[in-house]
Amino acid sequence: MAVYTDVTPEELEAFLSTYELGRLRAFKGIAEGVENSNYLLQTEAGSFILTLYEKRVNPADLPFFIGLMEHLAKRGIDCPQPVRNREGVALGQLAGRPALIATFLVGTSVRRPTAANCAALGAALASLHKAGADFTEFRRVNALSVAGWRPLYEQARERADTVAPGLAALIADELLMLEERWPRGLPAGVIHADLFPDNVFFTDGKLSGIIDFYFACNDLLAYDVAICLNAWCFEPDGAYNQTKGRALLAAYQAERPLGEEEVAALPLLARGAALRFLLTRLVDWLNVPPGALVRPHDPVEYLRKLRFHRSVTSPRDYGVTERQTA
Amino acid sequence: MAVYTDVTPEELEAFLSTYELGRLRAFKGIAEGVENSNYLLQTEAGSFILTLYEKRVNPADLPFFIGLMEHLAKRGIDCPQPVRNREGVALGQLAGRPALIATFLVGTSVRRPTAANCAALGAALASLHKAGADFTEFRRVNALSVAGWRPLYEQARERADTVAPGLAALIADELLMLEERWPRGLPAGVIHADLFPDNVFFTDGKLSGIIDFYFACNDLLAYDVAICLNAWCFEPDGAYNQTKGRALLAAYQAERPLGEEEVAALPLLARGAALRFLLTRLVDWLNVPPGALVRPHDPVEYLRKLRFHRSVTSPRDYGVTERQTA
Repeated sequence: MAVYTDVTPEELEAFLSTYELGRLRAFKGIAEGVENSNYLLQTEAGSFILTLYEKRVNPADLPFFIGLMEHLAKRGIDCPQPVRNREGVALGQLAGRPALIATFLVGTSVRRPTAANCAALGAALASLHKAGADFTEFRRVNALSVAGWRPLYEQARERADTVAPGLAALIADELLMLEERWPRGLPAGVIHADLFPDNVFFTDGKLSGIIDFYFACNDLLAYDVAICLNAWCFEPDGAYNQTKGRALLAAYQAERPLGEEEVAALPLLARGAALRFLLTRLVDWLNVPPGALVRPHDPVEYLRKLRFHRSVTSPRDYGVTERQTA
Repeated sequence: MAVYTDVTPEELEAFLSTYELGRLRAFKGIAEGVENSNYLLQTEAGSFILTLYEKRVNPADLPFFIGLMEHLAKRGIDCPQPVRNREGVALGQLAGRPALIATFLVGTSVRRPTAANCAALGAALASLHKAGADFTEFRRVNALSVAGWRPLYEQARERADTVAPGLAALIADELLMLEERWPRGLPAGVIHADLFPDNVFFTDGKLSGIIDFYFACNDLLAYDVAICLNAWCFEPDGAYNQTKGRALLAAYQAERPLGEEEVAALPLLARGAALRFLLTRLVDWLNVPPGALVRPHDPVEYLRKLRFHRSVTSPRDYGVTERQTA
């Protein structure tokens, strides 16, 4: 939930007058995204999302994010398309913040993905990876890959066991192993890196939009698949749903077959992905101001997922089938 | 800022299927209203606002609020029009809360009203008072009129002076005077009671919508005028802008002339209105949980307004002109 920056209608009208979007008809702060302030704009030209970039976003990353969305939209990916102003510039300035107007995507996210949703997601993820292959104008290192985990652990270590007994030791073990064995040389490219169900819209059961590219970066493509297995294929009771995993992986591979090494690395990548979300949630959880109205995500959900991944003995446990590997 | 109740898309689809609004196209929590959760719905039939009534709203009051909006909309007032479901019922149930779908109003609120805005507001307020005159199906006592102020004072008394030195004594004085001299017998009817600039939309400079009827009640019509003088006619530096007051009052009176007794009571009603918002803001201000993300309105703004009203010697100080009285 967001909306941090207060924009006056007067400031907005002045900003909007630099675009070819006609007059403002309505303007509401919306509860979407956690890093930025988002507003729904209705103008004579239709509906748009206005994003003001808050302090957690590094302004130096904005050309990557905006360039990527433009690139993907041009290649037919259903993602927000940045709107350029009369001078041909997409990134503006409003209320003292970098600001972007992008197209509004129709659809609603699902809370409990079905196997059909997972299949649609797998296909869309592969299309995104293919469409991003020739996006080379900007690069962005993944600050939340293996090299970024130990600093998070250091922030949380002292109080980690207040969340779950033995958590600090388990994370320390896992970190050592992952730092040593994290795969190198797998196919890399642009990944979304945060493709949770609330960032994916469906309309009449069909995937109609992917949003929130503010963790996107250059990293291993199969790591993005592992993030999605974590985010889409577990049940609320913590069980991995192999039917959903199979649907996601089969649909992904129909678009972009995974190499043998990528398949072999899946269990390790899935452990890494679980640890990454466990760590960021843990740090957020331990740093909530008392009395805050926003409750952070429960880190224990990802501890359970991590435990599942530690029990996995073969990529087949995720639902990869023999014939699917390239 | 609101959005307290979490609605899953699945629950919403089921709820929406009882209405003739077609399929859901988009659904976003919006930061509007402070008492309830509000969502923007886009369906095949257009844009709507979904409101879930939270605990601060008494369910027994909902028929009054919904009946009033229907009544006013039928009489041409630009307010949200409750949408009835296939069974002809407007008030539903969603996510364990009373729920209402209402039409979406186009327009944006102004942050710094101009004299022209104040004139438009005055005319709309008078139209609202006239349109509400025959709304007799339900009644709602104003819990935040003079009888409700002392209990608020009792809640704030002990710590009031931490906000401004001498505040407790000033409020005590004011309360005694207002309890003794509060006018009786002035024309009464349905009032909005919270018609601040953020509850009024303009489109191309014309007033296009009035929202948030959740303080509406039966009370003195001139008290509603006094609330609006407080909310619309002061400058950010605390000065009363008589040009704006004159514009508001003249436009109101062109639609509904104030009686002599109403004009004479204006200074007292304005003091009461200032005290009402001073008290509710003070109680909220003193009860913010530490670390809360939502900062309440500053009570001192209304202390300043109250001091202005105490200095007023004649209704003319607000901009009422001789020829305007009925």
